[in-house]
Amino acid sequence: MAGDGRSVGDRASAEAELDRLAVLAANQALYEALENGDLEAVENAWLGPEDADDKHGAVCVHPGWPVLRGRAQVTRSYMLIMANTEYIQFFLTDVECEVQGDTALLTCTENILSGGEAEEEGELGPLVGGKVVSTNLFRRTPDGWKLWSHHGSPVLTSGDDEDEE
Amino acid sequence: MAGDGRSVGDRASAEAELDRLAVLAANQALYEALENGDLEAVENAWLGPEDADDKHGAVCVHPGWPVLRGRAQVTRSYMLIMANTEYIQFFLTDVECEVQGDTALLTCTENILSGGEAEEEGELGPLVGGKVVSTNLFRRTPDGWKLWSHHGSPVLTSGDDEDEE
Repeated sequence: MAGDGRSVGDRASAEAELDRLAVLAANQALYEALENGDLEAVENAWLGPEDADDKHGAVCVHPGWPVLRGRAQVTRSYMLIMANTEYIQFFLTDVECEVQGDTALLTCTENILSGGEAEEEGELGPLVGGKVVSTNLFRRTPDGWKLWSHHGSPVLTSGDDEDEE
Repeated sequence: MAGDGRSVGDRASAEAELDRLAVLAANQALYEALENGDLEAVENAWLGPEDADDKHGAVCVHPGWPVLRGRAQVTRSYMLIMANTEYIQFFLTDVECEVQGDTALLTCTENILSGGEAEEEGELGPLVGGKVVSTNLFRRTPDGWKLWSHHGSPVLTSGDDEDEE
């Protein structure tokens, strides 16, 4: 029993670590797709048509936005964001991930550097920095870990309260 | 096979509906606890010490706040909010819930009416309205559905974009 127990435990622990790494990679792929303005790759990071349709299964809240639900609304929102963004780069910090069965909850801080409209053609508009905290929920599917829900919101407080202790 | 199939299907469908109702009730209990300023009931709505400790397992983002992680930080944040809130009432709209196995994803709009410090003792301060969208993630536990993650953010856009289509 002891021998079996250890081997089962080792295997479970190795599988948990593989899950965690796979979720982190899926999360990274989402932000790289956004940086590259690759709408197809963004769509591919989300639950596919097997698990979500135009009304259900994909839930997205961009900073300051209402809830978007279903693949059509979510994809359309990214099209709008990409159309208004010349340049965007994400520096992710505080990435934390917990896997429970076929669900993974990941939170991160998106330190965003982005540029909007340029004043002259071919030029880059002024770059602005922003800080957003995101809760990203992934589901295990036959195609890998896919985004079920994304909720991003601007950080407006200093966060000193939580550091006091 | 046909008879069995129908009975199994009926049972699965009834169980799914019971799950959904139980999640809606757990969500309602959270907001009632907040309205009543009942910190113990708020804590009871969240994952208990079996599933979360002071560093892991409970993740909370209040509107404009950074990510809080672990039961200690989450409880402390509610203590702060309650200490600064004389009166708060939530009118929940757009409540949508999807249960997948032992995980449930619920989104809602919190139409909040709240009052802060009163100018005179025994009086209620001026009431202010606010609109927050929340993503609430629940896990099935032996004690019922418990909150794993809450992410609330202010709605700053009109939301007209999504209604255009």
